[in-house]
This record gives sequence, structure tokens and C-alpha cells, in this order.
Amino acid sequence: MDLLIKNAVINNLTTDVLISDGRIIKIAQNINVPSKTLIDAAGKYIVPSLKNGHTHSGMTLLRGYADDMKLQPWLEEKIWPAEAKLTPDAIYWGTRAAALEMIKSGTTFCNDMYFNFEMSQKAYIDSGIKSASGPALFDFFDPVKAKDMKINCNSAIENTDISQNNSLSLAAHSIYTLSRESLEWIADLATSKKIPVHIHLSETEKEVAECITRYGIRPAELLRETGLLDINLIAAHTIWLDDYEIDLLAEHNVTVVHNPVSNMKIATGGVFPYSKFKERGIRMMLGTDGCSSNNSLDMFEDMKVAALLQKFHTNDPEIMKAEEIFNTAAGTDTSIFPQLSSQIKEGAHADCLLLNQNTPELVPSHHLISNLVYSANGSCVDTVICNGKILMEHRRVKDEEEIIERIRSISEELYG
Amino acid sequence: MDLLIKNAVINNLTTDVLISDGRIIKIAQNINVPSKTLIDAAGKYIVPSLKNGHTHSGMTLLRGYADDMKLQPWLEEKIWPAEAKLTPDAIYWGTRAAALEMIKSGTTFCNDMYFNFEMSQKAYIDSGIKSASGPALFDFFDPVKAKDMKINCNSAIENTDISQNNSLSLAAHSIYTLSRESLEWIADLATSKKIPVHIHLSETEKEVAECITRYGIRPAELLRETGLLDINLIAAHTIWLDDYEIDLLAEHNVTVVHNPVSNMKIATGGVFPYSKFKERGIRMMLGTDGCSSNNSLDMFEDMKVAALLQKFHTNDPEIMKAEEIFNTAAGTDTSIFPQLSSQIKEGAHADCLLLNQNTPELVPSHHLISNLVYSANGSCVDTVICNGKILMEHRRVKDEEEIIERIRSISEELYG
Repeated sequence: MDLLIKNAVINNLTTDVLISDGRIIKIAQNINVPSKTLIDAAGKYIVPSLKNGHTHSGMTLLRGYADDMKLQPWLEEKIWPAEAKLTPDAIYWGTRAAALEMIKSGTTFCNDMYFNFEMSQKAYIDSGIKSASGPALFDFFDPVKAKDMKINCNSAIENTDISQNNSLSLAAHSIYTLSRESLEWIADLATSKKIPVHIHLSETEKEVAECITRYGIRPAELLRETGLLDINLIAAHTIWLDDYEIDLLAEHNVTVVHNPVSNMKIATGGVFPYSKFKERGIRMMLGTDGCSSNNSLDMFEDMKVAALLQKFHTNDPEIMKAEEIFNTAAGTDTSIFPQLSSQIKEGAHADCLLLNQNTPELVPSHHLISNLVYSANGSCVDTVICNGKILMEHRRVKDEEEIIERIRSISEELYG
Repeated sequence: MDLLIKNAVINNLTTDVLISDGRIIKIAQNINVPSKTLIDAAGKYIVPSLKNGHTHSGMTLLRGYADDMKLQPWLEEKIWPAEAKLTPDAIYWGTRAAALEMIKSGTTFCNDMYFNFEMSQKAYIDSGIKSASGPALFDFFDPVKAKDMKINCNSAIENTDISQNNSLSLAAHSIYTLSRESLEWIADLATSKKIPVHIHLSETEKEVAECITRYGIRPAELLRETGLLDINLIAAHTIWLDDYEIDLLAEHNVTVVHNPVSNMKIATGGVFPYSKFKERGIRMMLGTDGCSSNNSLDMFEDMKVAALLQKFHTNDPEIMKAEEIFNTAAGTDTSIFPQLSSQIKEGAHADCLLLNQNTPELVPSHHLISNLVYSANGSCVDTVICNGKILMEHRRVKDEEEIIERIRSISEELYG
């Protein structure tokens, strides 16, 4: 047996949790079997880890580089020129820093979209967290770029050894950076290779208007026509959708990802239509988005802001209760990623957190999940286990000093 | 000399900071004088501490007791019955827990409003943080209650030794829980004793409508007519104000306190009219509100949510820039409380924080204040100094274990 956790608190009961080959194989009192590693979790809650449905990890190098700006000058004058300087090595270390921050705040998976995904991929594997990522796909409606994109994409898929824990998702940027023909090509590739596709969808009202101007239809209809609704699609943001589009997403089992902090900070207007998604049983995840538009990767914060935003926007304090957003963040609806589980139960993937009951933010303990959503932040996590392996114990993560040192020196070199 | 901080980083320069009698008396390189205590702050930023403009610390015992409910059933079925059980001892320890959480998240002052303020007062003094608090004043329009309130208030003021660091502010609950006659009495008392008054103002649309029904005028006009605008008034929430009322607050130098998380969570509708306050030069503070409506006392979180809410509500990412909300939270506009300073400078009160430069949330360091507002949370604070005394060093606070233990046992006893 790989790991035995003794005396953890789950649903107010003290229990032992036995882990082997990345799975929870037994939950019971007084488990006494030999194990390679033993954790005494007396006085600690055990809860499922959080899963980040949408981020751009390499952008961690741009945290705080430009804030409080309007979208176009922010992108054109700041973010794009800064991104142009990012080397593969910078993206590797930026992703290591993102993974470090996620581990330290209780997140063990992210669905990533960025350039040089091979470097991010390697960073996730070296960090020990699970991930989905893949080649970044955009052509800016230029047939030459589209041709290069396809060649690079095929080559990347063939040359990448993607284990199940660090799986592939094709990072199709958006309908406003990909031609219709490329969207169709991506849908075909995803179908033949059985790879999910990760896309930005209807984050701003402007992109909807442009889609209608260009194609005479709304974005979700374009996704249907290009075949992208017939595959496993993960759509990030999904704010500016009409009811017909929401029905389309429901019919086609699209997974939508809410990024509340990023949406508010960039001031895209509109709000993720949570109730409509919930009514239709649409699969939802929670995401941080990247460090230049959040600027934190702490999913505890995104849980709280998600609940606050829904309550504020609808004038209804009963909407998006603590359990709902916690379950979303833990990955209830992540069946699209078979490497994930959302619960602490026998047979589940062993991705879990230990939190000390005596953490001030968790006291008193009238309601653990309420404390996790409304009071805690990522620093309340004591121990992180991913795939049955301990990535953080008593808040110590391996390589932390080296990662921070690298980020500081790369940042100085590129932008100093 | 009491305290010498060596090698701290301020505005990208390494410097020493010398503290005596609660004040910063010198900032320079290579200060070498004997001091009772020495801190080597190499690799640490020094920044001003945060000041919490509105809270109800005793409610920390009700953290997570009831969430995700509509206002009236939440108050009537949950909060008020639970509050009725609070003993003076419970309020003392609840306030110690609140102070502990504030210290651990870099806050060294709060303006409090709660029952049994003598117990809260004692708790703040024992914790070492600065505070303003005073008798909780409400009469529910009952002349008998009003008479008792006055007797108790006079007695409380006379019998309380309030040092400047833990000063008095009369906790006049609101215009909907105090008769006009009592509001006038409070204004007279505040004038004669030179004590500030702390009041809830226009948090909900309903209370404005009720004021108009009862008095034929809007809340700020009632405050003017009862004399409450002629004293040092700290008004919490201040959402549902018309332009004339905002002009009144400006003319009378009222200090307004924004509580963004609480407002969103309770779903009061409306948004703190930040730009209008700013245009008129109105003094602003940031507050957490109490633990039953937030449920955290981490002012770092409130800084971020304040900025997000303004950007979202106005569709303008340029509104409330990081520096603006940081300065508000650090207390730029707290001249109403002479025990506070908002900057690290010679002559200022020695209320400051040290943060490790290698904290993941603060790396890279393109822009420190942006990192503090958008990326950090309270756990990034390493050391807290209040009134020249070290309240936390390397995240250790005195009495933490005892406070947590007491809160757990009191909570079990009252609500178990």
C-alpha cells in the first residue's frame, strides 16, 4: 500500500483512508496495514481537492505586469508585447510557479491553454499535478498561419507522451481567432483522436456581435455548424449566450467553465448564467483564468467570488449555495476528465486535502463547507495529495525556493 | 529605542526603520542605535497595516452558522436567536478570535459595533490591536428602552477607561432602530463628549423607503435634522444615497465605510457609489462587516472584491485602481481616528506589516501594490507591528491556541 492516512475527519467522523496506485481503496476506522507512507491526520479534515477548469499558467510571469486598464490597450500595449518575449524556458518556469501556487492553495488539476504546451506539460508532470493541455490553436483568418498551425498541431500530438493524468485538450483559442475552416479541422481532429477541445466562448458582447456580422449566426450555432458541439467541448467564460444557445450547450453535453474573478476584473459585463445552466443540468467547472487577469490562482477565492457575484447580480442570497460551488470547484461535473474524482470515497482518485481544524478561518465549525467557501483561503490547506502522492505537507512543497528564484530572475531578465 | 527594523524594503530600497513610543522616528540606511528589540527584515517588504472601518467582532462565534438565506429569515430565525445566547464571556472570546484573525491578515485596527462593548474593548486591549468601539445604541422606538439605553450609555462612558489607541465611538445602530429623539440625544452626547458616532446608513433600499414613509425625508436628511451630521460621523454601507444626500455627506465631512463582501453576500442590491464619493473628496474606509455576513475578516480579500465590484458594476476596468483601494484600506482617510497613520514615514504611528518577497503570490514583483490587492491574501503577511509592538512574527501570534480552544468550547456549549 502506498499511503495510509490515519485519524482524518470526514463528515464529523474520525476515520482512516488507505490509498494505493493513485486511488482511495478503503475508508474505515482502524485500518492497520503496512504502507510506504503514513500520515497522522488527527485534528484534520479531509476533503476533495479543487480542480481549475480554465487557466493560462505560463502567464504567471505577467502577474501584476499591467492592471486596471481597458481591454484593448491592456492587450495591445502591455500583454501581447510582454508575451512576445516569453521563451520556452520562461513558460516552463511560469507554469511551475502556477502549479506551485495551485498546490499551495489546494488545487491538483488544471485545464490549461497556452503557447509551448510541451513546456507546460513538462512543468505539470515535474510538479506532480494533473492537467489537460494541448497545442494552442489560432490562425487569425490567415490561410498560411492555418497551414502552419495544422502541421504544428499534428506534430505536437504525435510527439507528446500524454499520460492519463496529464492528458491532452486541444487549446482552440476562440471563434474570433480561428477561421471557420480551421474550426472544422479541429472538430475533425478531436473526433478522430478522441481528444477534448478547450475554447473561449462568448466572454465579451463584442465577440458575439462580430460573429453575427461575420457569419449571420451566434457563436454557439457556429460551434454546432463546425462540428465542435459533437465532441467533448470545454467552453470557458460562456457569459453572452441566449436561451437557444444555452439549450444547444445542454443538448450537446458541453462543459462550461466559470471564471468570476477574471470576468469582473476585465469588466466584460454580463454574468455567467448559472441558474439557466443548472436548470438544464449543464456540466460546470470553476476556473481562475490566467494570472494577468485574476491575478491569483487560489480557487478558494474564486469559489467565494462566484457565490458573491451570483447573489449580487440576482439580488438573491439563496442562489449558488456554498455546497453547490464547492462541489463545482471540486469537480462534480468533470467526467470529461477521467483522471479526476470529486469525492472522498472508495474507488475515487486520491486527490485530496487535509486542513487543520484549528485554523482560525475554520473556527467555529458550524458548517465546514460554508467555512471553506466563505471564510477560508488557499493558505488554510495543510497537506495536498494528488494521485496518491503527497505534493505538500505542512505547507512545504518541493522545489519552492528554486521556482521562486527562477521566476524572479527570468522576470528581471525579460522585463527588468 | 523600542524596536529597530533592519534591511526592510520600501519603494525598492533597502532601509532601516526605527520605532519608539509607538511612532516611526527614523527611516534611513544603516541606523545603528541600541534597541530593546531588533528585527532583521532582509528580503521583506514593509508596508502600512490595514484598518477595518466597520465590523461586529463578537459575531465571529456565528461564522458559518447560517448562510445563503434571505435577509429576514436569516436574521429572525437564525442570527437573532443565536445572538440572544451570547454571554459577555462569549463576546470577549469572539472578539479575541476576530482580533486574532485580523492580526493574522495584517489588520491592526477596527471600528466595532456590538453588544457588551466593554468585553470587546478588553479583548482588543488584550490582543494588542487598536480599536474604536462604544455602547451599542438602539431603542426600537420604545420610550422605556430608550430611557434604559441612555442610562446604560452614560454609565458605560463614565466607567470605561478608553486609551487613545482603543478609543470610543458610539455605536448608534441605525435610523430604523433608533427613534428621532434618541438620534438627537446621541448627537448631543457626541457633541458634548467629543466622541465620534458609528452608524449603519442606507444599506438596503427598504430602509430608505421606510424612512421616507416615517419622516417624509431621506436618511441623510434625517441625520442632518437630528444633528448627527454636525459631529464626527462614520457611516457604514452608504449604498442607497441620492446625489443630494451625497452632497450632504461631503459638506459635513462624514466618513463612509465600504463593505463590499457583505453587501454582495446579503444581496442588498445597489453598489457603494465610489466615483461620486471620490469626486466630492469624501473620506472613505474599507470594512469587512461581521463574520456572519462576510464570513472572513481578511481585509486583503475585501480590497480585491471592492475593486472587482466597482469594475464589474461600471463596466470600467480603470475604476478603483489598486493604489486607490490599498490606500483606502491602509487608512488614508482615517483622520477621524488620531491613533492611526496610513503611511510608512517618519512621525507616523508604527502600524506596519512585513511580507516576505519570496511569497509565491508576490512573485514576480512588477508592481507590489497590485500584487497586494489582486494576488495576495492575509496569509502573505509575515510580521505585524501595531503601536510599535510586534503582534505577529513569522505568523506566530500569542495566545492563538487558547483563543481557538475557547471558541471551539463556547460554540459547542451555546450551539452544540
